Amino acid sequence: MIRPPDDTHDPRLRSWVESANAPGHPFPVQNLPFGIFRRAGSRERPRVGVAIGDRILDVIACRRAAYLSGAAEPCDAPSLNRLLAAGQETWTTLRAELSQILRDGSYRAREMREREGDFLVPATEAELLLPAEIGDYTDFYASVHHATNVGSMFRPDNPLLPNYKHVPIGYHGRASSVVPSGTPVRRPNGQTKAPTAESPSFGPSRMLDYELEVGAFVGPGNPLGAAIPISEAEAHLFGVVLVNDWSARDIQGWEYQPLGPFLAKNFATTVSPWVVTMDALAPFRVPAAARPADDPSPLPYLSDGDNIERGGIALTLEVWLCTAAMRHRGEREVLLSRGGFAGMYWTLGQLLAHHASNGCNLRPGDLIASGTVSGPERGERGCLLELTWRGAEPLTLPDGETRRFLEDGDEVILRGWCEREGSVRIGLGECRGRIEPAV
Amino acid sequence: MIRPPDDTHDPRLRSWVESANAPGHPFPVQNLPFGIFRRAGSRERPRVGVAIGDRILDVIACRRAAYLSGAAEPCDAPSLNRLLAAGQETWTTLRAELSQILRDGSYRAREMREREGDFLVPATEAELLLPAEIGDYTDFYASVHHATNVGSMFRPDNPLLPNYKHVPIGYHGRASSVVPSGTPVRRPNGQTKAPTAESPSFGPSRMLDYELEVGAFVGPGNPLGAAIPISEAEAHLFGVVLVNDWSARDIQGWEYQPLGPFLAKNFATTVSPWVVTMDALAPFRVPAAARPADDPSPLPYLSDGDNIERGGIALTLEVWLCTAAMRHRGEREVLLSRGGFAGMYWTLGQLLAHHASNGCNLRPGDLIASGTVSGPERGERGCLLELTWRGAEPLTLPDGETRRFLEDGDEVILRGWCEREGSVRIGLGECRGRIEPAV
Repeated sequence: MIRPPDDTHDPRLRSWVESANAPGHPFPVQNLPFGIFRRAGSRERPRVGVAIGDRILDVIACRRAAYLSGAAEPCDAPSLNRLLAAGQETWTTLRAELSQILRDGSYRAREMREREGDFLVPATEAELLLPAEIGDYTDFYASVHHATNVGSMFRPDNPLLPNYKHVPIGYHGRASSVVPSGTPVRRPNGQTKAPTAESPSFGPSRMLDYELEVGAFVGPGNPLGAAIPISEAEAHLFGVVLVNDWSARDIQGWEYQPLGPFLAKNFATTVSPWVVTMDALAPFRVPAAARPADDPSPLPYLSDGDNIERGGIALTLEVWLCTAAMRHRGEREVLLSRGGFAGMYWTLGQLLAHHASNGCNLRPGDLIASGTVSGPERGERGCLLELTWRGAEPLTLPDGETRRFLEDGDEVILRGWCEREGSVRIGLGECRGRIEPAV
Repeated sequence: MIRPPDDTHDPRLRSWVESANAPGHPFPVQNLPFGIFRRAGSRERPRVGVAIGDRILDVIACRRAAYLSGAAEPCDAPSLNRLLAAGQETWTTLRAELSQILRDGSYRAREMREREGDFLVPATEAELLLPAEIGDYTDFYASVHHATNVGSMFRPDNPLLPNYKHVPIGYHGRASSVVPSGTPVRRPNGQTKAPTAESPSFGPSRMLDYELEVGAFVGPGNPLGAAIPISEAEAHLFGVVLVNDWSARDIQGWEYQPLGPFLAKNFATTVSPWVVTMDALAPFRVPAAARPADDPSPLPYLSDGDNIERGGIALTLEVWLCTAAMRHRGEREVLLSRGGFAGMYWTLGQLLAHHASNGCNLRPGDLIASGTVSGPERGERGCLLELTWRGAEPLTLPDGETRRFLEDGDEVILRGWCEREGSVRIGLGECRGRIEPAV
């Protein structure tokens, strides 16, 4: 079942961690996203943290002080995997307890304030790591606008393939090269072949792109051979992050037939460090995107009332770019696109149910990404391939620079947040990556 | 460098474990494959073992008795991952020591025989597990005969795509559903659409197939952003197993455009339990398959002299089938195909070097599979899709049963071995899986 809002979402709640109450801060007490951190530059064992304003709450330190119940025990680990395996009841209990101890007026507030150094770490002093050990990373293709745009570049007469509106299209990505926000991204070398060239050559990609995506971390999962019904899919979704699925379009164009993308994608995938839980997203659940009247209905294994009525997420997503020249002049990044996640053709629940429908076993820590999130408008396109129409319509930046694809030194910043009348805005934070020259 | 044979391959060597000396036994003292085992039905911690005849040597027990040096220390683990990470020098040292203690005339032979229960476990009393924790599983498409056959079913005019002879085509498979030999394989449900049907339906696959493949376990690997030169590729290959990449052809046909196979493959992949090391394969290295004169030369990052001269492996591979009816009557399995691995268009070294060429990080325990191994002759085709030409030419089994694709109760057995004048034959053992009905 898709979880309804509860008192942890009450917009009147404030935190005794003052920075969390600043209007528009991504991490108010209504959010409480989970991540993995350690003191920057240290070699200490990574720990589970919860972001609250500009501080990180050390969950297991709170447990040791008996401020949290046994629901916090699975956080005694260097990754979120144990917590992901623990399941929805634990997640919801832990969230309620975290909300209690962090809200203004908490009977723990005074003690915790007095011993703040034991429980809170300033975010600026922390290094944020991958939230989970990712066993398998799957990438979908769930935006019909993205699929139509990309398809029309390669097959103008027939942009959307006949299977698209029936099957949530997906493929396996590379787990080893998923990296946390801030990790430099080296421009890949690879085989490419210009249409006019007689034979391919090997060298640095010249069509390096980002892809704006949303990723979901899988909870308990299923044993091999057993499917997950769509009605139970949400219980296996822990929360979401921003995902940048970096793509080398020239390598992709030459290699992808007939088995799909491979080296064009697996050199790096960047994720934001804070996992915003499905519990936190409860006030922002919206109906799954309405299908045009002549589209097929999803097959029964991909359809239930709850998913239709509340399967979507009202999440706004942005892409920002900061070039080396801009950084050199001290200028701030510029907005490249802004779009919404609620318009996706398939919901996260549908993607998960489809994935397990053949008995494929999902495990705690698996990452399922949405595919590029693009909307119908030009300003909603989630990658340069679409924004510049494969380089044919270069972007002109405010300082006069132009971009067809990414250049060395470019930093891409993804941002996302949920906002809705009657609720406190919550954010996903940032997902950053800067391009380094090829070896 | 591709390792040359040494005294561990001496055909005159015999083992004091008598069963290892039986002519044609897959595990003579010249082989010494590694696997993970525990006593069948027990809950004990899995251990590293080496197959010798019909016995399994408990490596860490030998180390504790000081029969092996520190080179055996990475075997103190419930998977081969630590040993894979240790690298070639450790592997070669350990092999030499194992050969010493297991050969006839070994000064340890008497002690070990007297305390056999401490060091040797009968294979019949052991449960064999996955050799490694597989971080990422990659499947290639390295047989030009397979690619041509499959291509010609779907694109009769243009069977082989223009990239095939330049790029080793590969895609990411699913790591979670790789299972050891003997694990039942449940027939997957999925979306399929007959060409004549108006819309797809969901149900059990009716075109379930096996794929005969060879897989290689990756050794130390590379950090993200750094490639592995082809000249160093072999140092990152620990050894090989048989792989059955089960495939649901009807699901595949409907889902695979444009991002490649997904649910058609990820419901199960079976591997044989004994990893035959590249060291053991040294006497069976042969030149990479000769390319027809008008084929392009591999680009420099995929080519070096050592790979051309000794990149191939003279490995014979077979597929056997035992149906439920045959089993019921007590009949033995029948041979479906027999082919060779030496004819592959790309060598394992080329596959590995290509995989890392964009900086994608390979990790100890990664599994790289060859793709279906098919030869030019009909009897060398490594899957039913090819053998029955997509069901158009059903096989007739000796008892009169026919097969287009696999039926419930069918057991598929893969076998492989190396044989060469002047060397002792070594085997890969078996890779078995039986089809269970869909849920």
